[in-house]
Amino acid sequence: MSQEHPAAGHEFDRDTRVDKRADGEFTATFTDGWTTFTSHPNGGYVLGTALNALGQTLSQPDPLVVSAFYLRPAAPGTAILRTETIREGRRTATGAVVVEQGGKEIMRATATYGDLSAEGRELHLEGPPDLPSPEDCHVPAEFSGEVEGVTIARRIEYRYPERPGWLDGDKNGRPHVDFWMRFADGRDADVHALPAMVDFAVPAVLEIGEFGTITVELSTHVRARPAPGWLACRVYTKHVSHGLHEEDMEIWDGQGTLVAQARQLAMLV
Amino acid sequence: MSQEHPAAGHEFDRDTRVDKRADGEFTATFTDGWTTFTSHPNGGYVLGTALNALGQTLSQPDPLVVSAFYLRPAAPGTAILRTETIREGRRTATGAVVVEQGGKEIMRATATYGDLSAEGRELHLEGPPDLPSPEDCHVPAEFSGEVEGVTIARRIEYRYPERPGWLDGDKNGRPHVDFWMRFADGRDADVHALPAMVDFAVPAVLEIGEFGTITVELSTHVRARPAPGWLACRVYTKHVSHGLHEEDMEIWDGQGTLVAQARQLAMLV
Repeated sequence: MSQEHPAAGHEFDRDTRVDKRADGEFTATFTDGWTTFTSHPNGGYVLGTALNALGQTLSQPDPLVVSAFYLRPAAPGTAILRTETIREGRRTATGAVVVEQGGKEIMRATATYGDLSAEGRELHLEGPPDLPSPEDCHVPAEFSGEVEGVTIARRIEYRYPERPGWLDGDKNGRPHVDFWMRFADGRDADVHALPAMVDFAVPAVLEIGEFGTITVELSTHVRARPAPGWLACRVYTKHVSHGLHEEDMEIWDGQGTLVAQARQLAMLV
Repeated sequence: MSQEHPAAGHEFDRDTRVDKRADGEFTATFTDGWTTFTSHPNGGYVLGTALNALGQTLSQPDPLVVSAFYLRPAAPGTAILRTETIREGRRTATGAVVVEQGGKEIMRATATYGDLSAEGRELHLEGPPDLPSPEDCHVPAEFSGEVEGVTIARRIEYRYPERPGWLDGDKNGRPHVDFWMRFADGRDADVHALPAMVDFAVPAVLEIGEFGTITVELSTHVRARPAPGWLACRVYTKHVSHGLHEEDMEIWDGQGTLVAQARQLAMLV
């Protein structure tokens, strides 16, 4: 049984497609269409595929919190996904998914799903990034999708209020970047894409002269179902300790609603 | 085989003790000495016990990142802890631990361990909370350890720069509290206690009139080995959406080093 999705014609849905082989077992094929500077498939893309399987096995509609541990780099090609239901409760459902390639575990994610159509208290003490409209922002020429090996730049459109300093070798920048993002093929973000999209930012540590960073763990809270259109993003690092750093990522929809809040621990290389 | 610890005479070590029954299987006994307003053992205390088992099974000394999913409330009494080694690498080791009580899974944690004595880049763009010395801070009378059911207040000493507003029913406060914390019996914090201690704060949402909140997931980065003595803490919430909120907690040692950074997703009740 393959995952049916209303937007199955879009690149993200096509490339995160999973096929069920047995209860708790799915297969997927990672494409080379979502690679980053490391030439490996982006970790968010791998997670999005894994959640595509996990989400089918749980009774609740929306991922509320996802934690993914990255164990080995993914490679284009076949993967096996093993899902486990940990607990089905009244308001939440929790499960885990393991992704294997070549007989080795490359990622493990645990997630609690719930229902974001439920009413509840709202209180927001911070607002979205203060960005010019996407039309008034920059598209660095380097993001044209022609950078060798960086195929994700063809799938995602980025808009910056100014040219990012790291493109010109600035090593003394501030590791905090606000920008717009959307799928290049017009697919709107939804709660299933958000846990992938929080890993689609260019790492903020490039602004302080770093070139490589490997995600150890990525935690994401999906806070609301996003409105269609551009997403306003804020990516930043405040602390590098022992060569490890946190990277925070917030995604806000065009109506000014916080839709995802993520933090990863990553290792400079 | 019981866990040997240099400070085994201290309450935290005594109460998080685990006994190995077989490879990957430990037992523990949760005491009623770490309960909170819910009357259940604190989630950090449960996690500290679980990591006491997991840490024994991995080759690296320091937890770098821990993610714990809380599935059911813990109860004083016996627990079974099942550990799994996911990957032993050159620089990191990753494992998982499941805690069961009465045949049901109550918590599952995944963690990557590494070595925080390793050198690496340091860059810090924020400093510790600006607090008066612990001697010049308040100890609310309510924290004397005599609150019915709240036994954790006997184990942990808290010092506040001013009397927390929630104690007097202020529902219009700011959900951001800076304070000092340490073990009451003189045990110094270490990397093994920090993933527990990040859950020892009074929830910041009490400052906005909430009384109950249940942790769904708690992610902690241990950023450095702490110096002995008081810990400066910052606990805050910025967004409540659909009755769910994130709670961030930072712990700094007395030398001004960030030693732990945590975020949880919790549900108002």
